[in-house]
Amino acid sequence: MEKWLVGVDLGGTTTKIAFLSKYGELLHKWEIPTDTSENGKNIIVNIAKAIDRKLGEFDQSKDKLVGIGMGAPGPVDVTKGIIYEAVNLGWDQNTPLKDLLEVETGLPAVIDNDANCAALGEMWKGAGDGAKDLVCVTLGTGVGGGVITNGDVVHGVRGAGGEIGHITVVPQGGFQCNCGKTGCLETVASATGVVRLANEQLDSTSTESVLRDTRNQKREISAKDVFDAARNNDELAKGVVDQLAFYLGLALANAGNVLNPEKIVIGGGVSRAGDILLNGVNDYFKQFAFPTVRTSTHLNIATLGNDAGVIGAAWLVKNKI
Amino acid sequence: MEKWLVGVDLGGTTTKIAFLSKYGELLHKWEIPTDTSENGKNIIVNIAKAIDRKLGEFDQSKDKLVGIGMGAPGPVDVTKGIIYEAVNLGWDQNTPLKDLLEVETGLPAVIDNDANCAALGEMWKGAGDGAKDLVCVTLGTGVGGGVITNGDVVHGVRGAGGEIGHITVVPQGGFQCNCGKTGCLETVASATGVVRLANEQLDSTSTESVLRDTRNQKREISAKDVFDAARNNDELAKGVVDQLAFYLGLALANAGNVLNPEKIVIGGGVSRAGDILLNGVNDYFKQFAFPTVRTSTHLNIATLGNDAGVIGAAWLVKNKI
Repeated sequence: MEKWLVGVDLGGTTTKIAFLSKYGELLHKWEIPTDTSENGKNIIVNIAKAIDRKLGEFDQSKDKLVGIGMGAPGPVDVTKGIIYEAVNLGWDQNTPLKDLLEVETGLPAVIDNDANCAALGEMWKGAGDGAKDLVCVTLGTGVGGGVITNGDVVHGVRGAGGEIGHITVVPQGGFQCNCGKTGCLETVASATGVVRLANEQLDSTSTESVLRDTRNQKREISAKDVFDAARNNDELAKGVVDQLAFYLGLALANAGNVLNPEKIVIGGGVSRAGDILLNGVNDYFKQFAFPTVRTSTHLNIATLGNDAGVIGAAWLVKNKI
Repeated sequence: MEKWLVGVDLGGTTTKIAFLSKYGELLHKWEIPTDTSENGKNIIVNIAKAIDRKLGEFDQSKDKLVGIGMGAPGPVDVTKGIIYEAVNLGWDQNTPLKDLLEVETGLPAVIDNDANCAALGEMWKGAGDGAKDLVCVTLGTGVGGGVITNGDVVHGVRGAGGEIGHITVVPQGGFQCNCGKTGCLETVASATGVVRLANEQLDSTSTESVLRDTRNQKREISAKDVFDAARNNDELAKGVVDQLAFYLGLALANAGNVLNPEKIVIGGGVSRAGDILLNGVNDYFKQFAFPTVRTSTHLNIATLGNDAGVIGAAWLVKNKI
């Protein structure tokens, strides 16, 4: 019997679940809402029920499944199987997530941080294309990161390995970050960061710009507005994209100088800007990277989109159970 | 019979050789000059002869030795056992160092980069104290670095993993680095970098300073002069040490944000400045490190000095042969 892997990407609003073949092929994927009421006590039970229901639909029993892997939104101790904190889910500190999963699903379980799972997913089936040394950075509402060296995730001593989004790129006078410090990559390279850079330009200059008109009309601009305007040759918007490319190129070059990964994979909503962003990032990357890194480490746009997390979680089942 | 490990630290001027127990105890260490004449063709033969001679002194035969490990001054492909380039030694590109060692010594051999060997040495027997996630930075004539994650060296795709010295800390208007780019940590945190910072201050201000007097008298100041003056409350020197601490704290915090290592070990001549440097670096490190990294990653001064390389090379013999 061909067994299946279960990959779960646990988010604060929705939970993505998938059945995959042992070769990483997505056989079936679906989503359920994440119920964070009552300190999140239903979250794991709901996942277990959803899996049972889906097995029923396929007329399969539980022994069809090898095990369950989960990417969780917070720092994780993978050895103990605990999540240090998961504020968005309502859980206590040090929730024994692996044990809860095993009890409720009856399956062997393995957990990791969600950004690390995305990196594993891209390594296995995405832009990483099997590279054993890989950095993955996800430019979304925040900036997440995952680092893989010698084929395995770098967790560091307290689960904070891969915090690419908190590389300090503005040492003095940077924006305040949610993490408590200032000048983090996340403050300028997330979707909100791009808007922040644009607003700063709009407020500190009187340069004509379609973004100024947009702001006057609907009061708020989006990261997409900025990239669209830059594509239409709006000078102010082009300046903002150049700033973003500078900060991202600097941070990724310095991660590259530390790790010399085969690939640096850029994902998340902001990465959908495509070449207008990637070309600039590449230029600054080459400027700030050690010569050997410049020629051997390559930047790529992520290819798996929202599936990276469940695929990486399934990789954990295949390789860690 | 208790067998010995051979550790070799190959330098451009001298080669350090040591016999160690399998527990990493230094039993005997000595140095020979590195003969770089005739494109370095005698280097490996001289090492083989030196080992044979030393075995004779101890009245031992070759089967006393488990194997030979070497740290080499250049980027290395550890799998193929080649050194990509070693300009200082006169060797051709892609010299098959492992094979040469095995042929000339008759021992199984394993090689790595010298900075990586120093990191392994500090991990095994030095300030790393067994930490499996560790960054080592050596502030000498240049700035070397080694990165260990999950207990193993990060080489990256082309041997440039751990190039901490080439983290860009001055993105705009930085000093020219030997590597070809500008603004590298090495340009400000090596022994020559500290002097460069001091000269810049002396040239661009008219602040009174004992360093100005020194320069007027003997025309050249040293990194030690700068630290001594700072300890004696010389304002200009204190400013230079603060600049150095800022750059080093920033680079190490960003390496910490990527890796969250248990320890960051600072070695090399400049690190002998001790607390006057470490305290400042710690302050900036805490300012630029992600909160979890700030509390869980610790900075330490290296403890093995010049022995780190041979001890790390012996670790390779113990673990990779």
